[in-house]
Amino acid sequence: MDINVVNALPYEEFVKLFGNVVEKCPLISAAVWSCRPFKDLANIEVHIAEFIHSLPDSGKEGILRCHPDLAGRDLQSGTLTQESQEEQSQAGMTTLDSAEILKMYRLNAEYKDRFGFPFVICARLNNKADIVRQLSERLKNDRAAERERAIEEVKKICSLRLRNIVLPDIQTKL
Amino acid sequence: MDINVVNALPYEEFVKLFGNVVEKCPLISAAVWSCRPFKDLANIEVHIAEFIHSLPDSGKEGILRCHPDLAGRDLQSGTLTQESQEEQSQAGMTTLDSAEILKMYRLNAEYKDRFGFPFVICARLNNKADIVRQLSERLKNDRAAERERAIEEVKKICSLRLRNIVLPDIQTKL
Repeated sequence: MDINVVNALPYEEFVKLFGNVVEKCPLISAAVWSCRPFKDLANIEVHIAEFIHSLPDSGKEGILRCHPDLAGRDLQSGTLTQESQEEQSQAGMTTLDSAEILKMYRLNAEYKDRFGFPFVICARLNNKADIVRQLSERLKNDRAAERERAIEEVKKICSLRLRNIVLPDIQTKL
Repeated sequence: MDINVVNALPYEEFVKLFGNVVEKCPLISAAVWSCRPFKDLANIEVHIAEFIHSLPDSGKEGILRCHPDLAGRDLQSGTLTQESQEEQSQAGMTTLDSAEILKMYRLNAEYKDRFGFPFVICARLNNKADIVRQLSERLKNDRAAERERAIEEVKKICSLRLRNIVLPDIQTKL
């Protein structure tokens, strides 16, 4: 998709297309529509990152709280967004055995209890073992550091989702 | 619903309950969960308003762009959120004749073309005639003034949606 095509989209079409590049936060893509014309795909990412960083800490935590647990209730009940479903599937979260599901449940619960937001990681860039290891390690962070760490993951997820929309013919499913 | 019950909700339940008090912006209720404990219902509203006002202009416009047109495509195709469906119905938007639908379509298109976001008004506090009159009048505003005007309407909609959730037994459908 040519950037001129993206720049010509009315906001309704833009939000329909990019509304979930940050999970369940169409507000963000709807906001960056104000920044057109975009020079290129990377420029859209820059504007999204700038918008996220302009938010107060509560807003960053709000973004994180719009994310589902990995291998959590939404996956079990089939209520993940299409993007999350594909990403969790690719990271092996859909084929865990019951002991692994229980382990993820306990780690997620401990994480949410400690930080007040869910563990977010770019599932496409990590396999099952990476995810369990990083979840255990990141539990040792303090809240401010972990908030920033998780937001960096949100930006990676966003980058890959954007590429999948704008460059669907290129191998972006890393 | 007692405020102590609200304050005891984990973020997942809080977002499930209040996620659409600002249309399609669960990020906002997810963010204000960080501000617990709330003193009362009015205190939740204050935190939501403060969060909205903390956003850059693009973010406020982003909120507006998450709203559907009045008597627009989403209403015709049955894809409104439940809250919007009820509000548009109450304001008479579901029983327009074809000439009225065409008039709303033209006014909405003119408004979106001028401002880059949709016309937002608290439908529960206005009837069909009020809506058409205000849409025509507000078209004369400049963009900055109209952005602020529309955000005031978002806050009124939010206030009534909050009351309907927390005080469902009291007559709040004005």
